[in-house]
Amino acid sequence: MHMTVSVAVAGASGYAGGEVLRLLLGHPEVEIGALTAGSNAGELLGPLQPHLVPLAGRRLEATNLETLSGHDVVFLALPHGQSGEIAAQLPDSTVVIDCGADFRLADAAAWEQFYGGSHAGTWPYGLPELPGQREVLAGATRIAVPGCYPTVSTLSLAPAVAEGLVDPDVVVVAASGTSGAGKAAKTHLLGSEIMGNASAYGVGGVHRHTPEITQNLSRLVEGTVRVSFTPLLVPMSRGILATCSAALRGDVSAERAHAVYTRFYVDEPFVHVLPEGQWPQTQSVTGSNAVHLQVTVDAAARRLIAVGAVDNLAKGTGGAAVQCMNLALGLSEGLGLTTVGIAP
Amino acid sequence: MHMTVSVAVAGASGYAGGEVLRLLLGHPEVEIGALTAGSNAGELLGPLQPHLVPLAGRRLEATNLETLSGHDVVFLALPHGQSGEIAAQLPDSTVVIDCGADFRLADAAAWEQFYGGSHAGTWPYGLPELPGQREVLAGATRIAVPGCYPTVSTLSLAPAVAEGLVDPDVVVVAASGTSGAGKAAKTHLLGSEIMGNASAYGVGGVHRHTPEITQNLSRLVEGTVRVSFTPLLVPMSRGILATCSAALRGDVSAERAHAVYTRFYVDEPFVHVLPEGQWPQTQSVTGSNAVHLQVTVDAAARRLIAVGAVDNLAKGTGGAAVQCMNLALGLSEGLGLTTVGIAP
Amino acid sequence: MHMTVSVAVAGASGYAGGEVLRLLLGHPEVEIGALTAGSNAGELLGPLQPHLVPLAGRRLEATNLETLSGHDVVFLALPHGQSGEIAAQLPDSTVVIDCGADFRLADAAAWEQFYGGSHAGTWPYGLPELPGQREVLAGATRIAVPGCYPTVSTLSLAPAVAEGLVDPDVVVVAASGTSGAGKAAKTHLLGSEIMGNASAYGVGGVHRHTPEITQNLSRLVEGTVRVSFTPLLVPMSRGILATCSAALRGDVSAERAHAVYTRFYVDEPFVHVLPEGQWPQTQSVTGSNAVHLQVTVDAAARRLIAVGAVDNLAKGTGGAAVQCMNLALGLSEGLGLTTVGIAP
Amino acid sequence: MHMTVSVAVAGASGYAGGEVLRLLLGHPEVEIGALTAGSNAGELLGPLQPHLVPLAGRRLEATNLETLSGHDVVFLALPHGQSGEIAAQLPDSTVVIDCGADFRLADAAAWEQFYGGSHAGTWPYGLPELPGQREVLAGATRIAVPGCYPTVSTLSLAPAVAEGLVDPDVVVVAASGTSGAGKAAKTHLLGSEIMGNASAYGVGGVHRHTPEITQNLSRLVEGTVRVSFTPLLVPMSRGILATCSAALRGDVSAERAHAVYTRFYVDEPFVHVLPEGQWPQTQSVTGSNAVHLQVTVDAAARRLIAVGAVDNLAKGTGGAAVQCMNLALGLSEGLGLTTVGIAP
Repeated sequence: MHMTVSVAVAGASGYAGGEVLRLLLGHPEVEIGALTAGSNAGELLGPLQPHLVPLAGRRLEATNLETLSGHDVVFLALPHGQSGEIAAQLPDSTVVIDCGADFRLADAAAWEQFYGGSHAGTWPYGLPELPGQREVLAGATRIAVPGCYPTVSTLSLAPAVAEGLVDPDVVVVAASGTSGAGKAAKTHLLGSEIMGNASAYGVGGVHRHTPEITQNLSRLVEGTVRVSFTPLLVPMSRGILATCSAALRGDVSAERAHAVYTRFYVDEPFVHVLPEGQWPQTQSVTGSNAVHLQVTVDAAARRLIAVGAVDNLAKGTGGAAVQCMNLALGLSEGLGLTTVGIAP
Repeated sequence: MHMTVSVAVAGASGYAGGEVLRLLLGHPEVEIGALTAGSNAGELLGPLQPHLVPLAGRRLEATNLETLSGHDVVFLALPHGQSGEIAAQLPDSTVVIDCGADFRLADAAAWEQFYGGSHAGTWPYGLPELPGQREVLAGATRIAVPGCYPTVSTLSLAPAVAEGLVDPDVVVVAASGTSGAGKAAKTHLLGSEIMGNASAYGVGGVHRHTPEITQNLSRLVEGTVRVSFTPLLVPMSRGILATCSAALRGDVSAERAHAVYTRFYVDEPFVHVLPEGQWPQTQSVTGSNAVHLQVTVDAAARRLIAVGAVDNLAKGTGGAAVQCMNLALGLSEGLGLTTVGIAP
Repeated sequence: MHMTVSVAVAGASGYAGGEVLRLLLGHPEVEIGALTAGSNAGELLGPLQPHLVPLAGRRLEATNLETLSGHDVVFLALPHGQSGEIAAQLPDSTVVIDCGADFRLADAAAWEQFYGGSHAGTWPYGLPELPGQREVLAGATRIAVPGCYPTVSTLSLAPAVAEGLVDPDVVVVAASGTSGAGKAAKTHLLGSEIMGNASAYGVGGVHRHTPEITQNLSRLVEGTVRVSFTPLLVPMSRGILATCSAALRGDVSAERAHAVYTRFYVDEPFVHVLPEGQWPQTQSVTGSNAVHLQVTVDAAARRLIAVGAVDNLAKGTGGAAVQCMNLALGLSEGLGLTTVGIAP
Repeated sequence: MHMTVSVAVAGASGYAGGEVLRLLLGHPEVEIGALTAGSNAGELLGPLQPHLVPLAGRRLEATNLETLSGHDVVFLALPHGQSGEIAAQLPDSTVVIDCGADFRLADAAAWEQFYGGSHAGTWPYGLPELPGQREVLAGATRIAVPGCYPTVSTLSLAPAVAEGLVDPDVVVVAASGTSGAGKAAKTHLLGSEIMGNASAYGVGGVHRHTPEITQNLSRLVEGTVRVSFTPLLVPMSRGILATCSAALRGDVSAERAHAVYTRFYVDEPFVHVLPEGQWPQTQSVTGSNAVHLQVTVDAAARRLIAVGAVDNLAKGTGGAAVQCMNLALGLSEGLGLTTVGIAP
């Protein structure tokens, strides 16, 4: 069977939109239709995304119902708070995949506390690796792509939390490359400020991804999982390395923890629990849809430590978006995606 | 038509071998056979090339006739001087593609001056973008993959030299990422020494790629092109940016130079002469087989300036190797390759 | 008063030795005497430490009693396990400052568990910012310079632990530049492997700095503090950013935590508790002896979060060594040191 | 003799102003007075320049006659085109040192061609290493600090040009860190765009530093030196590495070239012609006022190749500014400056 899926991308000049397009260019069933932007509407894509050579001559259009209509799939890669209005105008039959935060949280109060403005709603959550979630996404026409930090933090802790290896009180420190902060020009994101520099931000539970991690992990247990989340900015363009830990419940050996993780993800094509003793590194997943995980226990500190690596733009955003499109359309889940990273 | 090509890679634990494998994993007609190594023989590939997830469980074998025999294609990604002996043992019908320098130079004296030891011979040179060279490579069973610096330097200057826009006396300053220096542990290549650092090396015409650039450009004219080549090491893993210039022959406008370059490469799938005013950057070609070029003239200085960008490991090594394999076997030249880079 | 202190540095070709020398070159009371090395003995310092221009013509000698004798102060910047033997030969009156780990731990069993070999002994611990420790160092003739991770981890947590704001059960995730791993050539420290990469290592309490952090924090309370310590390697040459947390004991506001930290370090010339809302970054302390700290509480997660930044080579090694020398000799503590970093 | 010089810095929140302040904080004869800014006026310096700890509590004032009056020395670190007006208001007796381009060029037409607007005038040029220039600067009350690229390009080529080793037709390719582009937020300078990327810009003689290099070199000979100048942006915060070449005039050996360079700079405290065979690297000069140079000849290409390294913010801007202040005031030229870089 061969089908051609027509796809529009709103926000095509940003990092998330660029990554969706990079992956779609390698997708065998996709025809790339309208490319839209905000302030860049009217410009050629070439100088804005010079790595997307086959699309260099495409001109960006305005983001509106007219330009986005008539496609099978619309990817929204817009600033937070802008997806709701345009999504409401698109037909129910169009598959709309939102790379932003607007539809991720079920708790409207949490949304309003962390993002401000009113909550647009809640869509099926695009993390098929969570138990039962792949079935939810099959055939869905509205999908909220997870945040990059929540993707790796959730997958790093899910087996431990779900299987009761640890107390529901977790600590996540996640070092991220800068592309997660987007392409808008800001002084603190200048190369001069970033290179040779590591910093923490959003400390104390105020980062917007905190309630999303909490929501994900709390789905796995009765009651609420407490999450202490600290994001770090480190000098690289792509990649997140999440170091996650929680107090052990009783005696758990490193071997058992590893076995639990291995079994939990045994059928997942994109989650790789590394052999014992090999730790994840972000370079290995650059450009790929893979998640690399490792787990051990610190007997003296009585904690389980899990470390996960993803490419924040790929599996953390654009890769997940394409994976969700494949699931929504009933295509093979891995079309246009790879588990092979670019290294060194 | 569908064929399955069985391929062996010698030197699978290094950077060049790893890149060949990364690309082969995305090649639809290839079956990856023996993976061999020197001191790493006997080890699993997983910890050595953690980005090559699908091959993680493969064990490296010794590099010898027995392990390499029985494949349609053998890629040699060995230290300079080691390809000759093993290549001589392989059947003439096996397609042997050497990523090293052993068979690149036609001038044995030059080889011995720059590399030491005796010259192994000269194989068809794997730069299909040179005039007439694609035909040479079709059906070839021995191919020498060009050096990374020569690839970008040659392609950046070829139109100007071949069309007589400049005197045959060129200056190339090429800034390279560190992966071109290989994976052997050396103090001056430590991350601590590389980050925050730019340096020149091999200054004064002593770098081994100098005679190769000279050979390539001199094929385009009568007589010998004089080449001043200075390589720089800059803090990035991948990519070469070559800044090339030569004295103008008479009046040449920037527009004419751009038109000459555009026409020269009009049929080349991997060479992109950018629109006037847009300059190449290495990030745009990361992981891809694309070469980005731009040219202008400096009227006051009376020089033509051409700038080219490649990924030294991709089009500069592994991508060229796969492109050559495709040509040698009569496959579509771009199979397993892309013009889309990974950015940011 | 003016005195001239004659100083020898053993291990002058490495990173720690180089940093001690960099700082000594700006110290007004120091005369740099013998420079010794292991395998580099006999070589000129110039090509090995090209940033130390005034010492470029100095030739490295072998590390032994003869070369090191006759100096007022001897800095040992040797691989772990090599300081004990040479230190034992030096006169008691010579001030010996060990930048290595040999004399840091009081617990011989812990030393042997984490470092192997037999424990050389315990010297006064060169962290004058710990309560009462400045007095111990005044006039001392044997001083163990703290490890880089323990310096920042200890100072980041000491006020919270000592003042009982938190349970004695702490989590430290510390992102480090690569210079802390030293100058010996290793594949995983190559620039190609480091750039674009973040990784965890020594996970699960097995890093050698774990018992040292435990020792430091446990001195501040009754009983033992449990420490979960995970070091990360991120793409920068210098700097450590430590993200530290622990469960709050009762209600503690962010304001109170900040006030406790500010008061704890009020007289410390090199520890800067930043104004509330400003978070430490490693770039700000590059090359300086400063430690930047910030603290807050996460009410939802019921944890105190403290973040500290140091230059691992400066305050984390060489700067602390010079600071300790100043204290040992009764010089002004800040001679040759600065709180001003090099940024951007 | 001890004097206290009161100093104001206009543009204290930018990179150039920050570097002037970093150096002044280590200058024994200086008292830092007014700190002024444009859009940041009214803010505390602490969060804007977090590395300048001793000035963290200082509040920025507006840049005007009132705030800058009453100081012995005023440093202007303003955007190009803004120095002229404020400088005209300051008393002739005030030493005014302009880190911008306004007063560098003697040729008003060149200024207007490259910078636009009207030429503000020409001040003594702050490169004391040029023959006779130190005398010009002694006692001067108006000084134009050279551009960063012109500093290293000029010093790298001056001996060869002045001594007639080469034709007056030079090629400069200079790889720079990003801080030279300033602290204003621009998309193409984001960390995500810079890391893993090398690019050329201002190609074809259009960069503003071209006429300044031409002016400097042409002072050394009769007639005009032709300059082909191409700047590159590479992934580091600080440093410029300039690769310079020109056709040899007759037979010149590498030894003779090296001897000429050594003799030319024999009395210069900040210019270090490295021993033959050792090539400059930017890391070695980070934070220092040193210029590292090396020269050789390429006999086959018949060119002299000189390579120079500076820290663009230090000797390339702030260090030169302080050096010029010292000369203007009759202080020891090296006060507050160092030849020792921070590495690794």
